[in-house]
Amino acid sequence: MRITRKEFVSLSGKVAAAAALSSPLSLRGMNESAESISHSATVKKIHAHIAREKEKHIANVQADLRQPSVSSWDMGMKEMAERMIQSFRALGCKEAELAPTDGIPGIWAFYDAGAPKTLVIYMMYDTQPWVKERWVVDPLSATRMPKPPFREVIVGRGAVNDKGPNRFFLNACESILAVNGKLPVNLMFTCDGEEEQGSPHFHQVLERYASRLKKANAVLTAVPNQDPEGNVVMNLGCKGILEFELEASGARWGKGPQTQPIHSSVKAILDSPVWRLVDALRSMYDPQANRILIEGFYDAIRPPNQEEEAMMAELVRRFGSQLLAPQKKNAKTWMNGWSDAEAMRHFMFDTTMNINGLWAGYTGPGAATIVPEKATVKVDFRLVPNQEVATQRKLVLEHLRKHGFDDLEYRALGGGDEWSETSLHDPLVQSLLAVYRMNHVDPMVRPRSPGSTPEAQYTRNLGLPAVRGGLGHGGNEHVDDEYIVIEGTDKVAGMVEVEQSIVDLLFVYAAS
Amino acid sequence: MRITRKEFVSLSGKVAAAAALSSPLSLRGMNESAESISHSATVKKIHAHIAREKEKHIANVQADLRQPSVSSWDMGMKEMAERMIQSFRALGCKEAELAPTDGIPGIWAFYDAGAPKTLVIYMMYDTQPWVKERWVVDPLSATRMPKPPFREVIVGRGAVNDKGPNRFFLNACESILAVNGKLPVNLMFTCDGEEEQGSPHFHQVLERYASRLKKANAVLTAVPNQDPEGNVVMNLGCKGILEFELEASGARWGKGPQTQPIHSSVKAILDSPVWRLVDALRSMYDPQANRILIEGFYDAIRPPNQEEEAMMAELVRRFGSQLLAPQKKNAKTWMNGWSDAEAMRHFMFDTTMNINGLWAGYTGPGAATIVPEKATVKVDFRLVPNQEVATQRKLVLEHLRKHGFDDLEYRALGGGDEWSETSLHDPLVQSLLAVYRMNHVDPMVRPRSPGSTPEAQYTRNLGLPAVRGGLGHGGNEHVDDEYIVIEGTDKVAGMVEVEQSIVDLLFVYAAS
Repeated sequence: MRITRKEFVSLSGKVAAAAALSSPLSLRGMNESAESISHSATVKKIHAHIAREKEKHIANVQADLRQPSVSSWDMGMKEMAERMIQSFRALGCKEAELAPTDGIPGIWAFYDAGAPKTLVIYMMYDTQPWVKERWVVDPLSATRMPKPPFREVIVGRGAVNDKGPNRFFLNACESILAVNGKLPVNLMFTCDGEEEQGSPHFHQVLERYASRLKKANAVLTAVPNQDPEGNVVMNLGCKGILEFELEASGARWGKGPQTQPIHSSVKAILDSPVWRLVDALRSMYDPQANRILIEGFYDAIRPPNQEEEAMMAELVRRFGSQLLAPQKKNAKTWMNGWSDAEAMRHFMFDTTMNINGLWAGYTGPGAATIVPEKATVKVDFRLVPNQEVATQRKLVLEHLRKHGFDDLEYRALGGGDEWSETSLHDPLVQSLLAVYRMNHVDPMVRPRSPGSTPEAQYTRNLGLPAVRGGLGHGGNEHVDDEYIVIEGTDKVAGMVEVEQSIVDLLFVYAAS
Repeated sequence: MRITRKEFVSLSGKVAAAAALSSPLSLRGMNESAESISHSATVKKIHAHIAREKEKHIANVQADLRQPSVSSWDMGMKEMAERMIQSFRALGCKEAELAPTDGIPGIWAFYDAGAPKTLVIYMMYDTQPWVKERWVVDPLSATRMPKPPFREVIVGRGAVNDKGPNRFFLNACESILAVNGKLPVNLMFTCDGEEEQGSPHFHQVLERYASRLKKANAVLTAVPNQDPEGNVVMNLGCKGILEFELEASGARWGKGPQTQPIHSSVKAILDSPVWRLVDALRSMYDPQANRILIEGFYDAIRPPNQEEEAMMAELVRRFGSQLLAPQKKNAKTWMNGWSDAEAMRHFMFDTTMNINGLWAGYTGPGAATIVPEKATVKVDFRLVPNQEVATQRKLVLEHLRKHGFDDLEYRALGGGDEWSETSLHDPLVQSLLAVYRMNHVDPMVRPRSPGSTPEAQYTRNLGLPAVRGGLGHGGNEHVDDEYIVIEGTDKVAGMVEVEQSIVDLLFVYAAS
């Protein structure tokens, strides 16, 4: 039986600590020390301060959301960057500045607590645009309203992705400073103004401060990670991604229609770029065996290590048929007839070759009889350790060349994120796990996200462990009526509890 | 050296007849008798009548074009049918009536000359729609204007496709009647009001009058067939066509995304309908060998017969590298490295499997990482004697079933025209050839069109030879500024000459 938040407050620290110890994934002793830190006099005072300042903290969030910062419209980016820099200065950062890039600038700020440990904080300060008419309120109004089962949320663009959570973090830091005079760890803030554009220049921000960043201990992205039922999935890394378009065209090939479609009767004597693309694709992948046929594509893959195997065993033991519940909403059977447990392994550890989009010729209603002059496909490969984007790209191009398809035009897509990993045993991972468990959330800890993020820019380029997550919930990122929960439920943390858990995390990590 | 139209009028009939005899494809004697008929007193009087009535004939064409008849907009169809019926009655047709179908009605009319020979005349009385703002004049204005190299054309919707040519034919008939009192052949008019919709119900018109039509001698579609340089391609039939869409979907397959696209990371454990479609397509066709892999697909094909071989030899001898000139504008090399002469054979005699269109997933700019829930292709097969649409369709479906692709949804497209053929030795073919040659046009006679038409409804369902063509030129069918030539050049016949050649054709055919 699950212990509710309300019941939890009546339990003694010891019982809660024992309950939280149920998972073999946590380091021995971490949960107990987390409990004692959370119940220390200082932290309790900070918690109380946060509870008292609730209205002011909500107003802070609203003020941020009312300042637009839409990178794709180049709207308010300068003003939002200025707000962020002012906030970092108010916190006591001696350094707080724009970090110029070839695009919208990033931001760098450094808070020196003179502490032994340094956390890098990742923040994005841009948002998606919006279609105002489709929202229940003005996307810039940051309106407080009920949204059952939540008694109160704030609706506004950036509410959860990520301007709301950023302010929760800054509210928490301000509260620590108000009570304690200084933070328990040093903080290096690295902010991206083009996250919604795919972070095309963020690497320039990290390169500019690389020598400083390398001296930090870990990277934290403090964002609400609870689903509406309060559950959390925690990924210790991600897969890499290689994306591109391939286009077969008569013009490049020298065969088939050269400049425009031709009447389909001419197919009797003319090659077709569409058939050529079908042939090239089929040469790279066997759809019935679900196997990539590109020579050497699997060679770099390392088998799951001991830590990953332990995580997998725990996942299967704890979650059973619930493992792939979100994916099951849109699927009947897994590939190759795999069971849920088998599928989960492949979800975590397998490379993929997928067609995102494919088009050629006439695609409207009814008939049109043409030989199209070109055909195009968008492909993505997910990459697992130790497949590198550049190496795997080379294998694709070598395959095309070897099989005589070198007339196909290769057009890169996306940033080409590398795979990333952070050890389960990293102290920041364990600190966040302990904070979750203090709050009776026992996350589904996965060896990695099956998706891709730019996290490797921190983990592999700078050698830093990276952790993303936290209590709290929000939704409708990128779409209408984006919201963040202010008043939670017995399962989902509200703003005050989220800020209190951030305080816990910083103190627990400082003591780890 | 080519003899120009102006020079021709100064030449004696004998010289012209000798010149016209150069082609071995014409039956001996046909050209001489055509010349003598064309120069007979009666026909000369009719020619003169046509020349005198020129302005009235132009006004007749304009009146038809000013009556809209857009089947896809259901605009003016009833009024246009009424005009046609009145015209047939004015000509002396005892029968002239709407021929009801499940769609827009067709028209039937019968002119009984008490003559030994009966021609079926095919006419369509609908037109394409238009985008008025893109025309130089109102598409319903039927404006007379110069259009170099032509001193005068009429611009208007239906000008060439086919309302202008229909009226040329009726003008010619009226002129015969004015001079001669009766036509030299009986005429059965069969008119389609839905040609621009793919003639979905025209077979009902032909079925209704089938017993009458079967007693006719041949079918004529009298349309201008000269290109701007005056050259003519004459096809003695056409290929059949089998068209359909195939759709692979998670929903029908039971594998892959079921109802909508899913995040592409899930490709690690989920099948993809896009890969399935690629696999199914590749199983049906070998793009490198350019060979259809559907079992038995080539079995019904008969080799070219003696008549076709003779035509091919003549084509290669006369036209050499010009054989495929129009196709070459958009092609560099023929399939399998064929020479022009080889390609021409395959163009005439080969079946095809072509992809008209192909689409799945995200096809916009940039990246989108999804596994699409479905993928769709539009395919057309051109069929040659003796491949029947139903038989070849069955082979496709059997192939899909045998190879385990029976979850793919098959959706029929188009009317499924069968191949058609008419012998070179048919009197109507020879009559039209003789008329062309009297006018110093020596057509490129092809065993068949490599494209497809509903002609088999006459040739194979009713057992009638069918001929399409005539002097004259028009252009921009289906697009803006459709026109028909009124005043020709020394190579292209104007309206008066077209009408005179129609008179010649009817008299030559009557005497054949």
